[in-house]
Amino acid sequence: MGFSEERSADVVAASFAGAADPRLRQVLSSLVRHLHDFVKEVDLTDEEWAAGIGFLTRTGQTCTDVRQEFILLSDVLGVSMLVETVNHRTGGVATESTVLGPFHQVRSPDRRLGDDINLDGKGVPCLVSGRVTGPDGTALPGARVDVWQTNEDGFYDVQQPGVQPAGNLRGLFTTDEQGRYWFRSAVPRYYPIPADGPVGELLTATGRHPYRPAHLHFIVSAPGHRPVTTHVFVADSPYLDSDAVFGVKESLIRDVPEVDDPARAAATGMANPFRALTFDITLLRGDAHEGPA
Amino acid sequence: MGFSEERSADVVAASFAGAADPRLRQVLSSLVRHLHDFVKEVDLTDEEWAAGIGFLTRTGQTCTDVRQEFILLSDVLGVSMLVETVNHRTGGVATESTVLGPFHQVRSPDRRLGDDINLDGKGVPCLVSGRVTGPDGTALPGARVDVWQTNEDGFYDVQQPGVQPAGNLRGLFTTDEQGRYWFRSAVPRYYPIPADGPVGELLTATGRHPYRPAHLHFIVSAPGHRPVTTHVFVADSPYLDSDAVFGVKESLIRDVPEVDDPARAAATGMANPFRALTFDITLLRGDAHEGPA
Repeated sequence: MGFSEERSADVVAASFAGAADPRLRQVLSSLVRHLHDFVKEVDLTDEEWAAGIGFLTRTGQTCTDVRQEFILLSDVLGVSMLVETVNHRTGGVATESTVLGPFHQVRSPDRRLGDDINLDGKGVPCLVSGRVTGPDGTALPGARVDVWQTNEDGFYDVQQPGVQPAGNLRGLFTTDEQGRYWFRSAVPRYYPIPADGPVGELLTATGRHPYRPAHLHFIVSAPGHRPVTTHVFVADSPYLDSDAVFGVKESLIRDVPEVDDPARAAATGMANPFRALTFDITLLRGDAHEGPA
Repeated sequence: MGFSEERSADVVAASFAGAADPRLRQVLSSLVRHLHDFVKEVDLTDEEWAAGIGFLTRTGQTCTDVRQEFILLSDVLGVSMLVETVNHRTGGVATESTVLGPFHQVRSPDRRLGDDINLDGKGVPCLVSGRVTGPDGTALPGARVDVWQTNEDGFYDVQQPGVQPAGNLRGLFTTDEQGRYWFRSAVPRYYPIPADGPVGELLTATGRHPYRPAHLHFIVSAPGHRPVTTHVFVADSPYLDSDAVFGVKESLIRDVPEVDDPARAAATGMANPFRALTFDITLLRGDAHEGPA
């Protein structure tokens, strides 16, 4: 079967006929069909193709042990968010998911409930707490709550090795007998995604800003339940309606009010009054596999 | 406009509204729409997405000054051939184009008609010749004929710096007053594309071989005419019907017969009898821009 403009995707898909894995054959055939449709739809020029090759090459070469530019690219094209969404349909009864992002690169340090993860002490202190339950509201003791956020300067610890303390604003908690978790941190900050590489060029060329609204990342897992990868967003943050990676879902936005409660402050080690972020998480039943480690 | 599975491509396309260049907006919006359609069509899993990110990253990191793995990837997915085809529709009157490939990385050395470009002397000597004309058959004197091929071991000079003489089997000729070119070389060999990187993994996983049928690359340009990037393929070569990069077009296949012609042998510096590859090239009229340099 000779190559032609009309038959191009068929010819290439046919070349995958010998793939041992039928799912790989299906995924690649679909990818090729959509890629070829794209080329034909816009009549992609040689120069545009070459620019694309150069862009992808630089994207790969910008990746290091602590920077994943291809995930960023997937993020700013909404692909990450779409993959997350089609894989974690909640049916309206569980906590919605959002993007993992490129900064969950290390196993978070084990923490005890109540620990302060704000190791550099910057920013506005904040008590973060919530309850992990199943879809029927049953508490999930022993659930794992993995959290990470930027510091007040807008960087994750893995972006600033030697500058931030290792494990700053990152922790892996285990819920108590009532499914509760709580820890001390800082009020999340909005921040720009790394914009000094190819993805930054793309944002600039398309008139987009690189900011993400203030948020705190979560991966929550429990035996017998489906893990969820999500964020909680701060209600009054700039960029809530134009997140550079399209991560915002209405159900994930929370106020972070100032609380005047001397007893609770004393019990949690906060200075009264204090800012408090409450985020309850509902998991669907399902395979008890862990989230990304 | 919030993100959802249904609206995902619209939301991302809307983010490009501020792009200064309307063509960039068009290309990116189309790309995003087709990418999102792909993700939804196959319900791409988190693990498959992560595998894709890893694959693209390794592809970028395999690129060096003398190796372009992303062009190879584009080639084995038929994208390069499709782009070439939609940009160089010949209307049946001119020499058809095929892929540039990743090995035209240096300016070919200027050569004089009749030069021997087979600097390492390996393989079967071959006289390559032809005539460059316009669509009406008018000779094109002063046309530039840029050629490159592998040596007998299946490698281009740029793949073996320090092993092959620089400029081996590569040259930039200028046609004579009758539009003719001729030079001495070796009969082209079939060879594998580099299969020790991510693209090789993809070929293995899909049961594909990495071979290209024997061919000689050309970029031919002339004032007032559209340049053509093409190959001539050797008629009896293995893999003519399963080129790893889908480059074969019927019109580009030529026999390389043994010729017994003592006078012509003497005139061209060949030992009689000799193998001869004849490839006439017809250019379309058009903008007199040069091909890739």
